[in-house]
Amino acid sequence: MSNSVNGVGGSNRATTSVNGGGGPAVDKGVDYANYFCTYAFLYHQKEMLSDRVRMDAYFNAVFENKHHFHGKTVLDVGTGSGILAIWSAQAGARKVYAVEATKMAQHARELVKANKLQDIVEVIEGSMEDVTLPEKVDVIISEWMGYFLLRESMFDSVICARDRWLKPDGVMYPSHARMWLAPISSKLANQKMSDFDGTIDDWYNFVDETKTYYGVDMSIFTKPFTDEQRKYYLQTSLWNNLHPNQVIGEAGIIKEIDCLTATIADILDVRASISTSIFAEDTRFCGYAGWFDVHFRGSMQNPAQQEIELTTAPSEDFGTHWGQQVFLLHPPLSVGQDDELIIHVSMNRSQENHRLMEIDFGCEIRYSSGKLLPPFRNKFYIE
Amino acid sequence: MSNSVNGVGGSNRATTSVNGGGGPAVDKGVDYANYFCTYAFLYHQKEMLSDRVRMDAYFNAVFENKHHFHGKTVLDVGTGSGILAIWSAQAGARKVYAVEATKMAQHARELVKANKLQDIVEVIEGSMEDVTLPEKVDVIISEWMGYFLLRESMFDSVICARDRWLKPDGVMYPSHARMWLAPISSKLANQKMSDFDGTIDDWYNFVDETKTYYGVDMSIFTKPFTDEQRKYYLQTSLWNNLHPNQVIGEAGIIKEIDCLTATIADILDVRASISTSIFAEDTRFCGYAGWFDVHFRGSMQNPAQQEIELTTAPSEDFGTHWGQQVFLLHPPLSVGQDDELIIHVSMNRSQENHRLMEIDFGCEIRYSSGKLLPPFRNKFYIE
Repeated sequence: MSNSVNGVGGSNRATTSVNGGGGPAVDKGVDYANYFCTYAFLYHQKEMLSDRVRMDAYFNAVFENKHHFHGKTVLDVGTGSGILAIWSAQAGARKVYAVEATKMAQHARELVKANKLQDIVEVIEGSMEDVTLPEKVDVIISEWMGYFLLRESMFDSVICARDRWLKPDGVMYPSHARMWLAPISSKLANQKMSDFDGTIDDWYNFVDETKTYYGVDMSIFTKPFTDEQRKYYLQTSLWNNLHPNQVIGEAGIIKEIDCLTATIADILDVRASISTSIFAEDTRFCGYAGWFDVHFRGSMQNPAQQEIELTTAPSEDFGTHWGQQVFLLHPPLSVGQDDELIIHVSMNRSQENHRLMEIDFGCEIRYSSGKLLPPFRNKFYIE
Repeated sequence: MSNSVNGVGGSNRATTSVNGGGGPAVDKGVDYANYFCTYAFLYHQKEMLSDRVRMDAYFNAVFENKHHFHGKTVLDVGTGSGILAIWSAQAGARKVYAVEATKMAQHARELVKANKLQDIVEVIEGSMEDVTLPEKVDVIISEWMGYFLLRESMFDSVICARDRWLKPDGVMYPSHARMWLAPISSKLANQKMSDFDGTIDDWYNFVDETKTYYGVDMSIFTKPFTDEQRKYYLQTSLWNNLHPNQVIGEAGIIKEIDCLTATIADILDVRASISTSIFAEDTRFCGYAGWFDVHFRGSMQNPAQQEIELTTAPSEDFGTHWGQQVFLLHPPLSVGQDDELIIHVSMNRSQENHRLMEIDFGCEIRYSSGKLLPPFRNKFYIE
């Protein structure tokens, strides 16, 4: 034996059931082991706190809209190190409730005290779904976005917080979110295909050797092993900070979320079709890239004085720790200027782990010559 | 946000309690998420099946001791791909029960069928602690060894199987196990110290920048961040296949286990003192290495015809996937021929995850000159 003693996937053994947002029942302990525990490390907090695009957006959103905070009550969902709660207090909040499920809550409490805000910021260790506040709040602030926005399913907790604790005229920070999709070129497609081929070649050697030396025929595993490796190398999305010139066609929006009104049902399924024109000459369509942006606009009754945007789009200078999620085609396809792609996308939560996603792409290509490429489909996993 | 949605540590939220071998109650779902799921991947099975030292030892143990298997009933604890169960059947077993907790059981069943042994080998999907067999068995075979033998705490399941299902005159495969410890030299000590220094330098920059740009003083986290990083870089044991010439003093045995009689209490604490002489000239004592061997000797009443040994000691040509566990000292100490080390070792299970270990070393050095170095202690984590 010998393994990592660290999870590499979810478990479907539900024991203590909690609402997993419409999916199968979720074991809280398993969810903690698989998900939350990462956030209990300061190293991981530092990574997020070092993302200047992320930090600048939230910082400006708060300090350029002090009217939303001055004398108000604020709830920070998943406060982590406590940074957003502290900024809210520095911007003049009367009271800030900072909820955190992991032991990081203890560090957040120390940070609040070191910054002399312990009379304003109250750190509460517990999961948002279980916490009771003494009052409703004027503002909910949260940095809940995962890869391609919805991975981690943390927005569920924000919705729960909003429905229970936000005043009717309260505002959400951020107030809006959008998911984007675009066709891309990437050298990773060749590399991953070559990695996959290598692991399969190696498998055949292994089957031969096991038969020769140990008298057992393992060839029955060839298909499931190939499926497992195909999923790993070819069907799992990749983290990448793309250069903008790798985007070969117009990006399209596949989901818009109003954080004030969205329900869990709204985000369980993401289904959209977009049409995009290739604007690069003679290039390779290697796959899709997905990213998101969020906006801080306040609400209709209570708008922002200064609207702020946080985007994770491909950028030469302003990459984020979210990067983009890349879904590669094998093999890539030759395309050229004015070829049109019609892309159908459907994203759902994984059955085994409600914080992970499965995504289907359907694509038709209408070449500028008039020729049509029959539709093709690809399935990917956001792990 | 954004994280791995994969565990990087255990959880202490026990919901469904099972016997965790004398430690705190264990949540089965959490244990599955943290531990078992790795074994559900064929890629991981292939890694173990490609370890020639491991494979040769078990293969020879079975086929050079067919008298233990011919016409007998066998239980394979944690069969994985099913290899040991299949060999047992090929060596003439009348019936083999092959127990596996993960979905790998389904693959094992296919492999058994593809090798036409389905009338002899019965694959049972379930955890050993929960399984009921229709009869007691003559042989228990299992490959239960983790890094430094006891990591993963899988021997608990073997003990459980033995106490419930082994006939009074039954035999254990393997029958004996030993843990070894030796002083080593290693260039990794410098590298890890430099990695640690780098991460701490970077931290101070981060604290300055966060204060300058975002008005929050993070210096309160300097101590806990340093502790966290020290644990990660300097106090976590490393996997390494050492060259034999990196062993600078005699190796000593710190634990001997008779698999037929050992109890969980016997393996919960490993405490020993060994004395070792440095046999290298003018070298650096960079830390300790731990490894194990197991033996296939049958039992007193029913001995092996051919005793087989599986060792994971440092070897130029016969490295294993277990390698050795390396515990580095910072800084290393200069030592020379005939200097004597008295090493006290104490290993326990981690409170947070009963499959991980904590280990304390105490060391005194009696230089060949007669000079004594006062004792020093170091704590490490086997993660």
